[in-house]
Amino acid sequence: MAGSPSRAVGRRLQLPLLCFFLQGATAVLFAVFVRYNHKTDAALWHRGNHSNADNEFYFRYPSFQDVHAMVFVGFGFLMVFLQRYGFSSVGFTFLLAAFALQWSTLVQGFLHSFHSGHIHVGVESMINADFCAGAVLISFGAVLGKTGPAQLLLMALLEVVLFGINEFVLLHLLGVRDAGGSMTIHTFGAYFGLVLSRVLYRPQLEKSKHRQGSVYHSDLFAMIGTIFLWIFWPSFNSALTALGAGQHRTALNTYYSLAASTLGTFALSALVGEDGRLDMVHIQNAALAGGVVVGTSSEMMLTPFGALAAGFLAGTVSTLGYKFFTPILESKFKVQDTCGVHNLHGMPGVLGALLGVLVAGLATHEAYGDGLESVFPLIAEGQRSATSQAMHQLFGLLVTLMFASVGGGLGGLLLKLPFLDSPLDSQCYEDQVHWQVPGDHEDEAQRPLRVEEADTQA
Amino acid sequence: MAGSPSRAVGRRLQLPLLCFFLQGATAVLFAVFVRYNHKTDAALWHRGNHSNADNEFYFRYPSFQDVHAMVFVGFGFLMVFLQRYGFSSVGFTFLLAAFALQWSTLVQGFLHSFHSGHIHVGVESMINADFCAGAVLISFGAVLGKTGPAQLLLMALLEVVLFGINEFVLLHLLGVRDAGGSMTIHTFGAYFGLVLSRVLYRPQLEKSKHRQGSVYHSDLFAMIGTIFLWIFWPSFNSALTALGAGQHRTALNTYYSLAASTLGTFALSALVGEDGRLDMVHIQNAALAGGVVVGTSSEMMLTPFGALAAGFLAGTVSTLGYKFFTPILESKFKVQDTCGVHNLHGMPGVLGALLGVLVAGLATHEAYGDGLESVFPLIAEGQRSATSQAMHQLFGLLVTLMFASVGGGLGGLLLKLPFLDSPLDSQCYEDQVHWQVPGDHEDEAQRPLRVEEADTQA
Amino acid sequence: MAGSPSRAVGRRLQLPLLCFFLQGATAVLFAVFVRYNHKTDAALWHRGNHSNADNEFYFRYPSFQDVHAMVFVGFGFLMVFLQRYGFSSVGFTFLLAAFALQWSTLVQGFLHSFHSGHIHVGVESMINADFCAGAVLISFGAVLGKTGPAQLLLMALLEVVLFGINEFVLLHLLGVRDAGGSMTIHTFGAYFGLVLSRVLYRPQLEKSKHRQGSVYHSDLFAMIGTIFLWIFWPSFNSALTALGAGQHRTALNTYYSLAASTLGTFALSALVGEDGRLDMVHIQNAALAGGVVVGTSSEMMLTPFGALAAGFLAGTVSTLGYKFFTPILESKFKVQDTCGVHNLHGMPGVLGALLGVLVAGLATHEAYGDGLESVFPLIAEGQRSATSQAMHQLFGLLVTLMFASVGGGLGGLLLKLPFLDSPLDSQCYEDQVHWQVPGDHEDEAQRPLRVEEADTQA
Repeated sequence: MAGSPSRAVGRRLQLPLLCFFLQGATAVLFAVFVRYNHKTDAALWHRGNHSNADNEFYFRYPSFQDVHAMVFVGFGFLMVFLQRYGFSSVGFTFLLAAFALQWSTLVQGFLHSFHSGHIHVGVESMINADFCAGAVLISFGAVLGKTGPAQLLLMALLEVVLFGINEFVLLHLLGVRDAGGSMTIHTFGAYFGLVLSRVLYRPQLEKSKHRQGSVYHSDLFAMIGTIFLWIFWPSFNSALTALGAGQHRTALNTYYSLAASTLGTFALSALVGEDGRLDMVHIQNAALAGGVVVGTSSEMMLTPFGALAAGFLAGTVSTLGYKFFTPILESKFKVQDTCGVHNLHGMPGVLGALLGVLVAGLATHEAYGDGLESVFPLIAEGQRSATSQAMHQLFGLLVTLMFASVGGGLGGLLLKLPFLDSPLDSQCYEDQVHWQVPGDHEDEAQRPLRVEEADTQA
Repeated sequence: MAGSPSRAVGRRLQLPLLCFFLQGATAVLFAVFVRYNHKTDAALWHRGNHSNADNEFYFRYPSFQDVHAMVFVGFGFLMVFLQRYGFSSVGFTFLLAAFALQWSTLVQGFLHSFHSGHIHVGVESMINADFCAGAVLISFGAVLGKTGPAQLLLMALLEVVLFGINEFVLLHLLGVRDAGGSMTIHTFGAYFGLVLSRVLYRPQLEKSKHRQGSVYHSDLFAMIGTIFLWIFWPSFNSALTALGAGQHRTALNTYYSLAASTLGTFALSALVGEDGRLDMVHIQNAALAGGVVVGTSSEMMLTPFGALAAGFLAGTVSTLGYKFFTPILESKFKVQDTCGVHNLHGMPGVLGALLGVLVAGLATHEAYGDGLESVFPLIAEGQRSATSQAMHQLFGLLVTLMFASVGGGLGGLLLKLPFLDSPLDSQCYEDQVHWQVPGDHEDEAQRPLRVEEADTQA
Repeated sequence: MAGSPSRAVGRRLQLPLLCFFLQGATAVLFAVFVRYNHKTDAALWHRGNHSNADNEFYFRYPSFQDVHAMVFVGFGFLMVFLQRYGFSSVGFTFLLAAFALQWSTLVQGFLHSFHSGHIHVGVESMINADFCAGAVLISFGAVLGKTGPAQLLLMALLEVVLFGINEFVLLHLLGVRDAGGSMTIHTFGAYFGLVLSRVLYRPQLEKSKHRQGSVYHSDLFAMIGTIFLWIFWPSFNSALTALGAGQHRTALNTYYSLAASTLGTFALSALVGEDGRLDMVHIQNAALAGGVVVGTSSEMMLTPFGALAAGFLAGTVSTLGYKFFTPILESKFKVQDTCGVHNLHGMPGVLGALLGVLVAGLATHEAYGDGLESVFPLIAEGQRSATSQAMHQLFGLLVTLMFASVGGGLGGLLLKLPFLDSPLDSQCYEDQVHWQVPGDHEDEAQRPLRVEEADTQA
C-alpha cells in the first residue's frame, strides 16, 4: 500500500516540519518570556508565612487535575464514535491539545500576566490553557475527519490567539463574567469551527458517507468520553471561581443542570426516534448540554431550580438540533458539522450566555451579600448596575460571535492553502490516510491457539 | 425493522412521558423547597471569617469528584460485559443516576436537612445523592437486561424513598455507624434488587440465554468499570468520614482490604476454574468485594491486619458465590441475578455489617482516644456501651434487610403493571429493543479505503 | 479444550497456593508489625490542635488518588494493545499491583518508618507503595505475554525488596533527590525487566509472532492507558514533593515536558513512518517520555523552557528507539522487550537522571531562596556543594543500574525454576493459556434479535 510518491513525501515532511517549527518557536519564546510565578518559584514562595488567602491556593490544584482529565479523556474519546477514525480522533486531540497548551500559555500570558517583561505561570495558567485547549477541541469536532494534522495545527495556531483576545476583551475590557465559558469556550469554539467548516465545504463528501457512522464498539468508546465530561463538568465550571461558596455553588448548579439535561435528552430522543428507539448520538452529546448552558451562570445565584430548568431546556434543544437542524445545516447552509458541535456547544452556549444576561440582570445586594464582590465586583463597587452588567454580558456574546465568525473564516482560508495535505473527498473519516492501521481481526494465521495442541507439544 | 405499531407507540410515549413527569415534578419541588446551604450561598458564606472547622469543608470537594467518578464510570462500565447490551448498560446507568441524584436530594433533604421550611443543599448533599444512586445501580445490576427504561425509572422512584428512610432509621434513630454503606448502600441495594428480580422471575429466560454471555471486547470494557471502582473505593468509603485521621484511616483500610480481596479472588478463581483457568467474571467483580466488606468498619480502628483479613475473606466468598451459588439462586430460589450482585454486594455487604458489629463491640476509650467522639459519638458521650453499639449495629442490619425485601417486593409488583413496556423473554439482554443500533463491523461498502487508489485519483 | 492433565493441575494449584502463601505471610507480618501512624490513628491524631504544618497533610490525599488512578488505569490499559492478551494485561496488572502494594508497604516500612518495633502507615505509605507498584508494572511490560501469573508474583516478590533497598540507598544514604522517580522507578523498573527478559530469552518466540501485534480496537483500549498516564503524570511527579510551591512547580514542569514530548513524538513518528504515516505505538508510548525525563528534575528550578526542551528531546529519542533500537535489542542483545520499556522508561529514565545531575549542579542559593531547604536540604545546611550534590546524583544512577541489573538477573534465574508454569513459545501473547476466554463475536445462534419477529410473537 504505497500511495503516490508525492503525497507520501508531503505527508512525511509537512507534519514534522510544522511540529519542529512550532515547538522550536514556542521553546524560544518560553526561554525569553516565561517564568515561574510567586506561588511556583522556589525563591519567591515563603512557606509558613502565607496568610489564609494564600493558603487557599492549594485548592486550585485538585481542580486543575479534574479539568485536565475532563479535557483529554472527555474530548478525546467523545470523538472516537466514527468507525474508522478512532486513531485520528484521540491522536489528534492529543497533538492539538499539547500544542494549544503551550501556545495559549504564551498568548494568555502576554495578555493577562505580563509584567516586568515576563509571563508568570502557575496552576492558574495551566487551567486557563486547558480551557483554551477545550475550545480548540470543540472546533476540531466540527471539522473532524476532513482535515489533516498539519491543517489542524495551523487552525490551533490561529484559534488560540483569537481565543485569548476574545477572552481578554470580555473578561478584562467589558467586565463580563463567564466562569465556565458558555461564551469564551463553547460559543467561541463552536462558531469558529462551524464557519471554518463552511469555508472548507466539500460538495462531494458523500463519497465518504459510508464511513461517517459508528459501529457498536466505537459508540461504547465514545461513551467513555461522555461520562468523563459529565462527571468532571462541575469541576470544569468551578475551576476558577471564588474558592469557598463560589466554587461549591458553581459545582452544585452544574451537577443539577447536567442531571436535568440527561432526562430531557432521553425523553426527546425516544420521542423523535425511529420506532421510539433511543439514539446513541443524542445520549453521547445532548446529555452534556446541561454543562454548557450553565457555563456563565453557574457561579451566580441561579438557584437549584434554575439549574434544573436550564439543563432540561438545553437537553431538549440539543436533541432536537441533532435530529432536525444538523441535516438542514448541511443542506441549506453548507456547514458539515461532523460531531454536531452546533447542537452541543453552539446553541447551548448561546442559551447559556443569554441565561447569564438574565441572571446578572436580576442580581441584588440582598441575594449575594458579601459574595457580590467575588461574583460581580463591578456591581459591588458601585461602578455598574445589575442592568448594566446584563447589557455588558449581552454585548460580550455579540463580540464572541463576531470574533468566532471572522476567525473561523480566516482559519478556513488558511487551511485551504494549496500545499497543505488534506484528505480527498473519498478519504474522509479514514485513519489509514494518516496512520499505519492494523487489521480489525486476527486473520487465519492469527487464530487463537488451541491449547490442547500446545500442551501436546510440550 | 418496523416492529409492531402498538409496541412502537408504547416505546415512543412511555419513556418521554415518564421523564417529563418526573423532571417536572422534581423541578417544582426544587423550586418550592430547595435552597443553597450556608456554605454554598453567596450571601450566607463569609470568606475570611471562617474558623478552622469551616475551613475544612473545602476538603469534601475532591471527595465528591472521586465518588462521582466512581459511581458513573465504575457502575456504568462494569455492566457493559454483556455482548449486546452495552448501550443499555451505560445509557440506563446514566438515566437512572441522573434521576436518582435529583430525587434523592429531595428525599434525603426532607429527612435530614429540612428546617425553616427548606432543604439546604451543598457538597454533602451531592455526595449523599451519589451514594443513593450507587444503591439504585446495584439493584439495576440484578435486573439488568430484563427491564425497560420506564420500568427502571419507577424502580428508582420507589427505591430512593426507601433508601432514604432506611438510612434515616439507621443513622439517626438507631445511631448506627455505616460510613461506606455496607448496610445502607450494598446490602440494601443488593437485596432490593434480588427480591425485585424474584418477583419478576422469567421461567422462559433461556430464550435469551445465548445473549447472556460476554465477548472479548465487552469484557475489556467491563474492566474499565472494575478498575475505576477499585481505585476510587478508598474515597467512596471515606467521603463523609471525619476529616483528618478518620478520612485517612478509612481510605487506608479500604486500600488494604481491596488488595487482599484481589489476591483471594485470583486464588479461588484459578482453583475452581475449568482447567485451572481464571474467569474474568470473578476478577471483574469479586476483586471489589474488599471495598464492600469494610464499608461499615473502615472508619473504625479495624487495624491494617483486620482490613487484609476481611478483604481476603470477602474475595474468596464472593468468588465461590459466583461459581457455586448463583446457579442455585436461579434454579432453587428463582432469582435471576444478571450481574451477580448477591456475590459482590449482598454477601459481602452482610459480612461487612457483621464485621462492623464485631469492631464496634470491641471499641474502647483507649483505642480511640479523642477520635471516639467522631467515630462513636454515643459511646463517647456515655449514652451507650460498646456492646450496646454492637447490638444496635446488628439491629441495623436486620432493619436494612427488612426494608430491602419489602421494598423489592413492592417494586416488583410495581414493575409488573401491565401497561409498562418490558422486553419479551426472547428479547432480553438486547440493545435493539431500546436503541437504534449500528452494525458491528464495516460491511463491504464500508471496507477500509485502499489509499493507493485514492492517491491515484488525486 | 482440555489441555494435558498435568499442565492443568499445575495451573490449578500453582497460582492459588502462591496467592495463599503470599497473602498469608503478608497478613501475619501486618498483624505483628503494621500500625496506623499518628495522622491515621484515632487516638494519636488531635483535631483542632494541629499546626499549619500538620494541616497541610490533608493535601496529600488528593495526590494519592491521582497516583492511584494513574498507576492502575494507566499501566493496566497501556498494555492492552496486544490483540489476544488484554485479559492478562489488565488482570495481571491488578494482581501484581495488589500484591506489590502490600509487600512494599512492609519492605519500605521496615526501611523507612520502623520505630518502636512497628511500621507506621498512612497516606504517604500508600503513595510510596503505589510508586513501587509502578516500577513492578514497568518490568511487567518487558516480559508481557511471556510469563505466567505465578512467575510474575515471584518477580514482584524479589523486585519490591530490591526497589526498597535501592530507594533507601539513594534517598537516605546518598541524599539523592528523585521525586518523580526517573531513577528509582523508571530506570530501575526498566532495566530490572530488561535484564530479566534477557535471561528468559526465547529463541523460538517467532512461533507466537503472529499474535504480537495489535488490532484496531486493542489500540484504542491502549490509548485509554496513555491518556490517563499523560493527564495524571503531573500529580505522580509531585505527589511527594514539598507542599506549596514545590508541588506546583513540579506539576507545571511535568505538564510542559509532556506537551513538548507529544509534539516531538508526532514529528518523528511521521518522519520515520512508512509512507509518512504515524505509528500508534509511538503515540501510545513515546508521547509519555516527557513525564519520565523530568522525574528527577521537575521539582528543581528546571525553568519552563528547560521542561520543554527536555520533553521534546525525550519524545524524539523514545520514538527513534521504538523505530530503530528495539529490533537491534532483540537481534543483537537477545532482549525481547514486549512493550518497549527501554524506549519509554529506560532511556528517558537515564536521560532524566542525567538532567537531574545537571540541574542539581547548577543550584544556587539565589535561584532557590528559602526553597533550597526543601529541594536540596544538604546544600541548604551547608553539608554539600551543588557540584557534590550533582556527583551524588550521578552515583545514584550507577547504583540504580547496578541494583536493577543484578536484580533482574536473579529474577530471571528465579523465574526459570523448572516447576513454574510458563507459556510455551507457541503460546505467548495468548490469553487462553491463563483465562477462560469468550468468543470474539456473536455466532449465528447469537445473531442480534430481529425486533419485528419478537414483536410479532407478543
